[in-house]
Amino acid sequence: MTSPNLHHVTVWYEDTDFSGVVYYANYLRYFEQGRDMFFGIPELKEMYTQTGIGFAVYKAEIHYREGARFGDALEIRTYVKPESDYRIVCDQSAWRVGGTQPLVKATIQMVCVNSEQKLVQVPDWVLKRVAERSPEANS
Amino acid sequence: MTSPNLHHVTVWYEDTDFSGVVYYANYLRYFEQGRDMFFGIPELKEMYTQTGIGFAVYKAEIHYREGARFGDALEIRTYVKPESDYRIVCDQSAWRVGGTQPLVKATIQMVCVNSEQKLVQVPDWVLKRVAERSPEANS
Amino acid sequence: MTSPNLHHVTVWYEDTDFSGVVYYANYLRYFEQGRDMFFGIPELKEMYTQTGIGFAVYKAEIHYREGARFGDALEIRTYVKPESDYRIVCDQSAWRVGGTQPLVKATIQMVCVNSEQKLVQVPDWVLKRVAERSPEANS
Amino acid sequence: MTSPNLHHVTVWYEDTDFSGVVYYANYLRYFEQGRDMFFGIPELKEMYTQTGIGFAVYKAEIHYREGARFGDALEIRTYVKPESDYRIVCDQSAWRVGGTQPLVKATIQMVCVNSEQKLVQVPDWVLKRVAERSPEANS
Repeated sequence: MTSPNLHHVTVWYEDTDFSGVVYYANYLRYFEQGRDMFFGIPELKEMYTQTGIGFAVYKAEIHYREGARFGDALEIRTYVKPESDYRIVCDQSAWRVGGTQPLVKATIQMVCVNSEQKLVQVPDWVLKRVAERSPEANS
Repeated sequence: MTSPNLHHVTVWYEDTDFSGVVYYANYLRYFEQGRDMFFGIPELKEMYTQTGIGFAVYKAEIHYREGARFGDALEIRTYVKPESDYRIVCDQSAWRVGGTQPLVKATIQMVCVNSEQKLVQVPDWVLKRVAERSPEANS
Repeated sequence: MTSPNLHHVTVWYEDTDFSGVVYYANYLRYFEQGRDMFFGIPELKEMYTQTGIGFAVYKAEIHYREGARFGDALEIRTYVKPESDYRIVCDQSAWRVGGTQPLVKATIQMVCVNSEQKLVQVPDWVLKRVAERSPEANS
Repeated sequence: MTSPNLHHVTVWYEDTDFSGVVYYANYLRYFEQGRDMFFGIPELKEMYTQTGIGFAVYKAEIHYREGARFGDALEIRTYVKPESDYRIVCDQSAWRVGGTQPLVKATIQMVCVNSEQKLVQVPDWVLKRVAERSPEANS
């Protein structure tokens, strides 16, 4: 059941606010974790250490349908597609395990930047990984 | 220079990540603070305590142009307009003080929910405040 | 290798600050997660929902030896002992997996409070769990 | 009323958890902000940029007496004294404005580290500032 497209998250005390549900910014933390698992942490560290290149979010669109609560086991689903030489798009969602609808959905547009925060082309290994790990690629 | 449409934020250590700039989810924290100042914290507390009603974000669209850094003094600008009996829309942006372009811009759509997280009409005092504090209202 | 005394944590982007290592407050988040796993999330939720009782930290003493970095796989170790009818003490530490010394160590003293934040006795199920899950209990 | 020993903080939604009070790790964020204001953000940035030197917390001892709530206006009090060539100690506390007792008190021991996280002597400008900004210095 381990897949680069799935990341499991537990909702902790710290993630909620006094209204009882997860604070809205925290889903962006969960989605970042899902993307890190999709691309691979060792690979992201190597890219950053050796070339100074990292991802930066350019645009995020988030739809909130239902709030998760303390102790919920969430599944973060991540699908990525290239958009141009300079941009990739991630479709991500947060599901309660066993749920029939996502609690939160997002479209995250990302670019790559160097250590001076200047735009660079998306590296080849990223595009290759996107192609390999996209379910449509095999259909 | 104090205005309900302006909220000042300092970028702290905790707000940055190892890439050197503010972690992308934190702008949603700054924008929430800007909205709390717009509506008024005592008023929000009273609404929640007396009626169980609070705001919930329904949709957020965020454009990231440039990353803020440790120690930056930011200005959060907040303009709100009603959209229907059930929804209000906030145009928000984060500016470096003295900057000529926003670092980050967002459109945040909000609804009101009761203590069971069920949708309720936007209360009258909120609509009144929105009308009073919208610059266009006076032009 | 699953044990109520061990909790695994990945260091994410959000956990670091621009100095490159984990922001110092975040170890308190990791330690809270370790305690939640020790006591059990369903049990903590049931206690809170049915009796309004929850844990509150009364005193924390933290020793920082070395900073964890993005992508590090950490092991949070949690050992708990009762101190009185009103207080339990948690010895916790954060280790890099395979490390020979803890990166951070803490002693966390906790009490139980009701929904008005008033001190109450530590419930019996908590003391029972502490006795069961303390390695010394079996020696 | 502005003083390097006083820093004002508002408790936001994000700072609370579902128990209704501020999540315990967040006081370490407030105390860090208080220290940054004590030493001066431009000075801390210059030290880091020009010499790679920054502060690192070595030991923290925190006493929690009462939880702050959403909307509370807190006053963070910071007093610093040198302990040796390599260590300074900060006595810090969080007060509700107008309160008669601190909500939370902490003793934070700090060292200076260079960009390889190696211990270095506390720079002279820091010791000078500590001497100037310690009320006892003038008595």
